[in-house]
Amino acid sequence: MFELRLVQGSLLKKVLESIKDLVNDANFDCSATGFSLQAMDSSHVALVALLLRSEGFEHYRCDRNISMGMNLGNMAKMLKCAGNDDIVTIKADDGSDCVTFMFESPTQDKISDFEMKLMDIDSEHLGIPESEYDAIVRMPSSEFARICKDLSSIGDTVVISVTKEGVKFSTRGDIGTANIVCRQNTSVDKPEDATIIEMKEMVSLTFALRYMNSFAKATPLASQVTISLSSELPVVVEYKIAEMGYVRFYLAPKIEEEEADPYVETKSKAQGKPTAETKPKLEIKPDVEMKPEVDSNMDNEVVEIKPELESKMEPEEESKTDLDIKPKKEANGEVQVMDVE
Amino acid sequence: MFELRLVQGSLLKKVLESIKDLVNDANFDCSATGFSLQAMDSSHVALVALLLRSEGFEHYRCDRNISMGMNLGNMAKMLKCAGNDDIVTIKADDGSDCVTFMFESPTQDKISDFEMKLMDIDSEHLGIPESEYDAIVRMPSSEFARICKDLSSIGDTVVISVTKEGVKFSTRGDIGTANIVCRQNTSVDKPEDATIIEMKEMVSLTFALRYMNSFAKATPLASQVTISLSSELPVVVEYKIAEMGYVRFYLAPKIEEEEADPYVETKSKAQGKPTAETKPKLEIKPDVEMKPEVDSNMDNEVVEIKPELESKMEPEEESKTDLDIKPKKEANGEVQVMDVE
Amino acid sequence: MFELRLVQGSLLKKVLESIKDLVNDANFDCSATGFSLQAMDSSHVALVALLLRSEGFEHYRCDRNISMGMNLGNMAKMLKCAGNDDIVTIKADDGSDCVTFMFESPTQDKISDFEMKLMDIDSEHLGIPESEYDAIVRMPSSEFARICKDLSSIGDTVVISVTKEGVKFSTRGDIGTANIVCRQNTSVDKPEDATIIEMKEMVSLTFALRYMNSFAKATPLASQVTISLSSELPVVVEYKIAEMGYVRFYLAPKIEEEEADPYVETKSKAQGKPTAETKPKLEIKPDVEMKPEVDSNMDNEVVEIKPELESKMEPEEESKTDLDIKPKKEANGEVQVMDVE
Repeated sequence: MFELRLVQGSLLKKVLESIKDLVNDANFDCSATGFSLQAMDSSHVALVALLLRSEGFEHYRCDRNISMGMNLGNMAKMLKCAGNDDIVTIKADDGSDCVTFMFESPTQDKISDFEMKLMDIDSEHLGIPESEYDAIVRMPSSEFARICKDLSSIGDTVVISVTKEGVKFSTRGDIGTANIVCRQNTSVDKPEDATIIEMKEMVSLTFALRYMNSFAKATPLASQVTISLSSELPVVVEYKIAEMGYVRFYLAPKIEEEEADPYVETKSKAQGKPTAETKPKLEIKPDVEMKPEVDSNMDNEVVEIKPELESKMEPEEESKTDLDIKPKKEANGEVQVMDVE
Repeated sequence: MFELRLVQGSLLKKVLESIKDLVNDANFDCSATGFSLQAMDSSHVALVALLLRSEGFEHYRCDRNISMGMNLGNMAKMLKCAGNDDIVTIKADDGSDCVTFMFESPTQDKISDFEMKLMDIDSEHLGIPESEYDAIVRMPSSEFARICKDLSSIGDTVVISVTKEGVKFSTRGDIGTANIVCRQNTSVDKPEDATIIEMKEMVSLTFALRYMNSFAKATPLASQVTISLSSELPVVVEYKIAEMGYVRFYLAPKIEEEEADPYVETKSKAQGKPTAETKPKLEIKPDVEMKPEVDSNMDNEVVEIKPELESKMEPEEESKTDLDIKPKKEANGEVQVMDVE
Repeated sequence: MFELRLVQGSLLKKVLESIKDLVNDANFDCSATGFSLQAMDSSHVALVALLLRSEGFEHYRCDRNISMGMNLGNMAKMLKCAGNDDIVTIKADDGSDCVTFMFESPTQDKISDFEMKLMDIDSEHLGIPESEYDAIVRMPSSEFARICKDLSSIGDTVVISVTKEGVKFSTRGDIGTANIVCRQNTSVDKPEDATIIEMKEMVSLTFALRYMNSFAKATPLASQVTISLSSELPVVVEYKIAEMGYVRFYLAPKIEEEEADPYVETKSKAQGKPTAETKPKLEIKPDVEMKPEVDSNMDNEVVEIKPELESKMEPEEESKTDLDIKPKKEANGEVQVMDVE
């Protein structure tokens, strides 16, 4: 028997709206720790991780770990039928192939229950490590969403560059170029308006705007977004869910040859295996925090985070984008390696 | 000469918006009693009846009964040009083939007049009786509209079931099932939030959601909707128009075999004429109240209310949907019979 | 070096939104006087003239007259990225083939710069004279926009007729006819609600509603619109830009045969060159005020304002629409003639 009850039911609606366009089908993992999900987008370029901790619910009961495969579009359709002030209950009996969503109006005058068939979905569990990042930017989520939308009207990719002074978002397209700089600003009236930069090293990475815009659909969940960047790691775009957990989006950077100095590039290419030279080798330790949610029955399959191949770069830029991130399960089941070959 | 004047002109705009998608062309019947319309939708499954009583108008003059055939889409286009605070006048000279809509702004600074050609439309007058219904549900019109919209995201039909405790709206579709229960609630702060059930017998009927959603376009006309149900009659969905009259929608129920017990079903089918067995025979007396609006020159033709035949039921359900509702005019022109064969 | 700075940056966004659908590519002319534009729509039926005087900007520097060819759609895309409270700077270095748009948030925490390639556009400079008009109507811009939109649901053209009492907008289409009269009204609480008519002669002219609706996109720029009409001149629809200048739209009237009396029409046609008879001959002196913005390097080409030829008139109406308005440059370069042959 699994049952959770959330008075602030609109939060679940927002969670589904934020991930349903990125992921079609996914397993929700239910354990004593909480209600979580981890899934790659259909083109295996981005990864979404959701955690709603059990303490955050008004009622939470999970007799044994279960994994419920759901079509997120259909789940979102059902949750859309909940009023914004409704109390939402999700429940599933042991061994049942159905999940029930129940919505209660605040006055208890309207009670809805929706039943949905569960799906068998091949689980793809990546151990996601807590990494050290070169730069962490916290900024208003609405500002980040606006920037991604604005840049999309000019180009297809965004270069995010972080210095101590601020974070710069740049793009270029057929009609011109754009640079948007947000300065560090901690002396604001409302904490949610702050832009705070924690930086160890300057970093500059390129990402597909299409995915950034998709991540920005989580904006209604949190007033601030946290963007964690390292030159050799996927970016993490995180929206905290107040007192409950988070939605985190991971996206591998696009890897491009240096365009400033063609001679350096040629030299680099002459050294035998030029493409291999430019690819970061990522070795990632398993994420201890994420582990408890993993159903021990589920096989951790090999997953590839492949950056988009359709590049709309200027001719002088050359993308090398065969970055693969694979989780490997060692014999003891505890150490996973995410590497790029 | 026919002329009516309505200070609250936005009301006529709302009336047209509520019926124009259901009915393309219709005759407006103008008599001393009021301004009324009765028409079937283009697929002859639903019927709409509008009455605006003469007392409700600031000015109402009707020298002799006339019937004005109009294209409701074009009429709605013209009424849309009225400001929401405009005073609306509709007038037609005797023998003219045109109708004039005049809109006066509250300050009288802007005066618009729109002229539209009238059409010859074969009139289809059904005598609609005042029936006794098994159950009458009054509920907030916005709640009813929301429920029909929500259920449409899951299925194509709605089962409306009434008990003393409340009214249940159910559907099923490819992605799952949904049940929404609205409890009787008379102790509300605002009368328009009440849900009131008058029930003689429990009733459970199935309708096409497509039509229910179409009826719900009348929601801006009234804060409450009244749904009258009997097992052998078309449902009546009524929106009262304050101090003037009503818009009423009639829809024949879909008739389905019992799905709970296959043996009962088989037995029922074995009794010779199974399909005839499951069809209600409706005999309907003419509606005295509606009569005065009928132009004595117009022939009352035979009209069929045919339920939709394209059924998207689960395989275990079998629809029998040859329900025909025909008005028949007897020799004395006073008794009409609406029956289902 | 050219540089302008405007604290009220949203104004530039509104200017671009008002003209980008009418004109694809155009030269912005920058001189000591101000920032201006003059362009014909792609079908050469309408002309738009924009003036933003240098005094209206917080900062304005123009070392020498330049003409910057821009795609207005792309420019609008970039300006859309400015926040509504942003300060906008436009700058171009001498000899550069680029223009830069810079947006600063009020708190200076977000600085964006967008760079766009300039285009070579054949300049089409008409001298637009300050004419005397038969009738000038000032009315609320939102009212004018509403009327044009409403009439478009009925017909394709509008007849604007001015008398001392008011201005009448009329149309006819397949579904009927419409007349909207706005009465002169100077005794209003707010000056922007006034409708003021200055009339020397009664005038009645026909225009394509498609263009009027396009002009009405400038409504957010000003609370009042001024419509200047003469029987032999293009109409001028002007939106003043507070303390800076204006956007003016010019549209040649459609010329139609009299439909009231077919004999008169026949007689007129019998007089040898009937079409020439019905066409106004416009001779227009060059507009002194507009001159300073004209780059002396640019050739003033011959431009034709051609009324739309696709007429959706009733069969009894016959359009004669070969009205050509051509600017001619005389030897001394000072006198231009706009005539209709």
